[in-house]
Amino acid sequence: MLFGKKPLPWTEKKPLPICRCAMAAATPSLLILHPRLILFATTLRPTPLICHQFSLHSPPLSRLPVRFAHNKHHSFSTSPLATATPLSADNSNVNETTRAGRSGSISSPPHQVVDYSQKVDVNPPKGTRDFPPEEMRLRNWLFQNFKEVSQLFGFEEVDYPVLESEALYIRKAGEEIRDQLYCFEDRGNRRVALRPELTPSLARLVIQKGKSVALPIKWFAVGQCWRYERMTRGRRREHYQWNMDIIGVPDVTGEAELISSIVTFFKRIGITEKDVGFKISSRKVLQEVLSFYSVPESLFAKACIIIDKMGKIPMEEIKKELELVELSKDAIEDLLQVLTIKSLTELEEKLGGTGEAVSELKQLFSLAEKFGYSEWIQFDASVVRGLAYYTGIVFEGFDREGKLRAICGGGRYDRLLSTFGGDDLPACGFGFGDAVIIELLKERGLLPEPPLEIENIVCSLDPNLQGAAAMVASVLRGKGQCVDLVLENKPLKWVFKRATRINARRLILVGSAEWERGMVGVKILSTGEQYEVNVDELQ
Amino acid sequence: MLFGKKPLPWTEKKPLPICRCAMAAATPSLLILHPRLILFATTLRPTPLICHQFSLHSPPLSRLPVRFAHNKHHSFSTSPLATATPLSADNSNVNETTRAGRSGSISSPPHQVVDYSQKVDVNPPKGTRDFPPEEMRLRNWLFQNFKEVSQLFGFEEVDYPVLESEALYIRKAGEEIRDQLYCFEDRGNRRVALRPELTPSLARLVIQKGKSVALPIKWFAVGQCWRYERMTRGRRREHYQWNMDIIGVPDVTGEAELISSIVTFFKRIGITEKDVGFKISSRKVLQEVLSFYSVPESLFAKACIIIDKMGKIPMEEIKKELELVELSKDAIEDLLQVLTIKSLTELEEKLGGTGEAVSELKQLFSLAEKFGYSEWIQFDASVVRGLAYYTGIVFEGFDREGKLRAICGGGRYDRLLSTFGGDDLPACGFGFGDAVIIELLKERGLLPEPPLEIENIVCSLDPNLQGAAAMVASVLRGKGQCVDLVLENKPLKWVFKRATRINARRLILVGSAEWERGMVGVKILSTGEQYEVNVDELQ
Repeated sequence: MLFGKKPLPWTEKKPLPICRCAMAAATPSLLILHPRLILFATTLRPTPLICHQFSLHSPPLSRLPVRFAHNKHHSFSTSPLATATPLSADNSNVNETTRAGRSGSISSPPHQVVDYSQKVDVNPPKGTRDFPPEEMRLRNWLFQNFKEVSQLFGFEEVDYPVLESEALYIRKAGEEIRDQLYCFEDRGNRRVALRPELTPSLARLVIQKGKSVALPIKWFAVGQCWRYERMTRGRRREHYQWNMDIIGVPDVTGEAELISSIVTFFKRIGITEKDVGFKISSRKVLQEVLSFYSVPESLFAKACIIIDKMGKIPMEEIKKELELVELSKDAIEDLLQVLTIKSLTELEEKLGGTGEAVSELKQLFSLAEKFGYSEWIQFDASVVRGLAYYTGIVFEGFDREGKLRAICGGGRYDRLLSTFGGDDLPACGFGFGDAVIIELLKERGLLPEPPLEIENIVCSLDPNLQGAAAMVASVLRGKGQCVDLVLENKPLKWVFKRATRINARRLILVGSAEWERGMVGVKILSTGEQYEVNVDELQ
Repeated sequence: MLFGKKPLPWTEKKPLPICRCAMAAATPSLLILHPRLILFATTLRPTPLICHQFSLHSPPLSRLPVRFAHNKHHSFSTSPLATATPLSADNSNVNETTRAGRSGSISSPPHQVVDYSQKVDVNPPKGTRDFPPEEMRLRNWLFQNFKEVSQLFGFEEVDYPVLESEALYIRKAGEEIRDQLYCFEDRGNRRVALRPELTPSLARLVIQKGKSVALPIKWFAVGQCWRYERMTRGRRREHYQWNMDIIGVPDVTGEAELISSIVTFFKRIGITEKDVGFKISSRKVLQEVLSFYSVPESLFAKACIIIDKMGKIPMEEIKKELELVELSKDAIEDLLQVLTIKSLTELEEKLGGTGEAVSELKQLFSLAEKFGYSEWIQFDASVVRGLAYYTGIVFEGFDREGKLRAICGGGRYDRLLSTFGGDDLPACGFGFGDAVIIELLKERGLLPEPPLEIENIVCSLDPNLQGAAAMVASVLRGKGQCVDLVLENKPLKWVFKRATRINARRLILVGSAEWERGMVGVKILSTGEQYEVNVDELQ
């Protein structure tokens, strides 16, 4: 034996007991986990707690107190009391000095030391979110509804990389989306972007799959998308988007089916036609007007993008921008007049009954009756949507109280595949974000709060029975029962509190006397009923 | 009426009928969706199909045939036949000219034109994946198992942003992970990175939540992680990782519970202790050796990172690197000798029975018996894991045939929170990737192929009954039945083929005669049984 009998300096440090409550059993030393604290406590010398961000070549930590000004979110405490910030879930900096007394945590060093502490920002990067358990349960509830509705409609789930080639999103129509790309060059000098939407990836995959997939394709996805937007209240830089797309169906039954699925979704989560409506139009309306004025087709998408800004920028600017894409004053006036039309009859009077715009819209409204969602939809020529690739029917879901932005939007994009070098296929789809719908549910008092529910809590009454409790937990889990196993020796009061927090249905106690007989104690928490049961008979 | 009677040039184009099969009804014009094709067909002038990538300020498309050499994956066809590439799911470029005859697609222009076509790479960026339906079903199956096991153990699901502050990952111990960061500066000049692992985000969120969460925290996550690695067969730059973490439990019961959950997962998917084992050690073993030689604790993490390279780089280099961090020759020799130990008895002989390393390991092996997974685990001092922050027990799951890399890994990291400026809390957790386990399942012939299953297919026998079919589909969906609604007028042969593809259980036919009586035809596809049923009685 080379060594071992000599007492190691490391094991000689005196334990600092951690009492989570008065009755807690003695816990093993934790101070050992943070020996630097001893240094602080004994020397009271200003020393940084940590400083290993950003600078990869800086001298060793223990020698140099460093302050970084790189990330403006970092908090630098000059006095722990003066700068103490209240804890909030959203964009506040947590001043850790306020948490020194947390039970179960290791005490902070004396405050003289904190003057020099360097902290990582504990908030997610600006515009992004954490999903702590309660938020995650809500997200799962929402996504589950997205998925179940998609499956009711026979759609298959797909996904694509969050990181795509930037080329997929560089379209020439002047879309807002292009200036909001989260793009960068990777270590292999490829221009890449965090996807701002899912449709280009879908188109890419459809082309790649070629003949190996049968038409029509009916795919759905729920994926995170990124846009570097100016941050305003409730507007983030990432959101999840539910997409459903139909590839290979030229008929307007495709759009009708898509809107039906969104309506089905709304109904499931308690939203009615009194809360939400769909404004529906067709880009072919604009196309017919522009064709009448012999505006070249290459300018069509650009004109649509400009028109989509109506209501966001002043009408005079809209007109100016339209003039810049070589539209005549007459064309612009006529266009803007057509855009005010709110009824299909009036549209038909304007455009005549022979064009595809009117006939497809009429067919869609007729199908809506059969699907049973006529009350949800209305014609509105002002809807054009902000993406360049739409070619036919376009629609958006809106809050009837007018407080919120568009809830979802979609339409037909029959020519997207050829812009990527593929053969065109008739296609339609929609995107439905996770942000506005949550706002709407809050507004209407419909936001659920899915509770945490863990069926069983298993606890040993004696430190020596920890293994026995593990065995009981394993038996129950083997039978498909969810079990929160108490992993430390804790007083019963603590266990009951935890049982309440996790909404456990029953508490299973492993005590010496019962265990010797192969039994455990069971308490049904809702009724207070108690009994003993053989471990093998636990169900 | 300003205009409308004049036939619009756009609506005059002659339809090009698309016949998906001989019996298909006439489909509405689709050529209208791609009028440029007419130009190609009539002029045979070389014109680019698309060229709007990368260059935002290039002249209008129609004037200039452009070739880009920016992305090396782009394919440039000089002759459609000479360069035709076979379609493969992985990293091949799809030459669209080979797909001209696809039914349902729009015909390609004459091949003279293709010489100038510009295509977007249809593959996902290097190192990333698409999830077409069959891959997505597999991913869902795997993730569902991750989630169900986590829930059996009473863990709550959480998630964090994919994009985090780079500062979270810049540790000074010389980890491989630091050089593999997908990092960049965002438009607001923040240094950000696609997360390479989940634990730093967890630590950040735990600090942020402070006292508002009850201890112990038991959280799990399944999230995508990114590492810019050298690409070799089966090694990608993104993978999904299942994490389970316990915060606030200093006892080794935490680690025992975590390993139990992984074993439960393996058993569920058909993997046994004959396929997989866990190598278990403790960083405290090394710490005790280094303390004996009075190596300062600040060098501990660095030494661990170097030791973790054993087996990957030659032993002489390991020794050299250890000498560079100021370890004496004696210390290195002793360290390397300790690392060869494969039994707890031998370890105890070496280190003595008083240290925490031995006592915690013994406790863990004793608990494993109670949990019932003794056969899965073995002591192996050479396991140290490659992340800087581990402080105690470390473990990794390995393929007993030795063909694959580590399947999962984890351990105790009691001091991570203080490196971010928080108060330390005892913590342990593991990461389990989605790549190696799939390889293992393939190796063992255990990879499932979850089939597509859509209960019903609904089809009208008459174009005029499309609305009726929609109504029938809505009735069924309202009753929770999944329905693939045939959205076009298709011959029965086509419908049966689709029914087979989607594994439909029954086919519901909407024909005029039956519909007039409020009835539909039902065919049970497995038995061939046919009957009529009133729409309201459909279940």
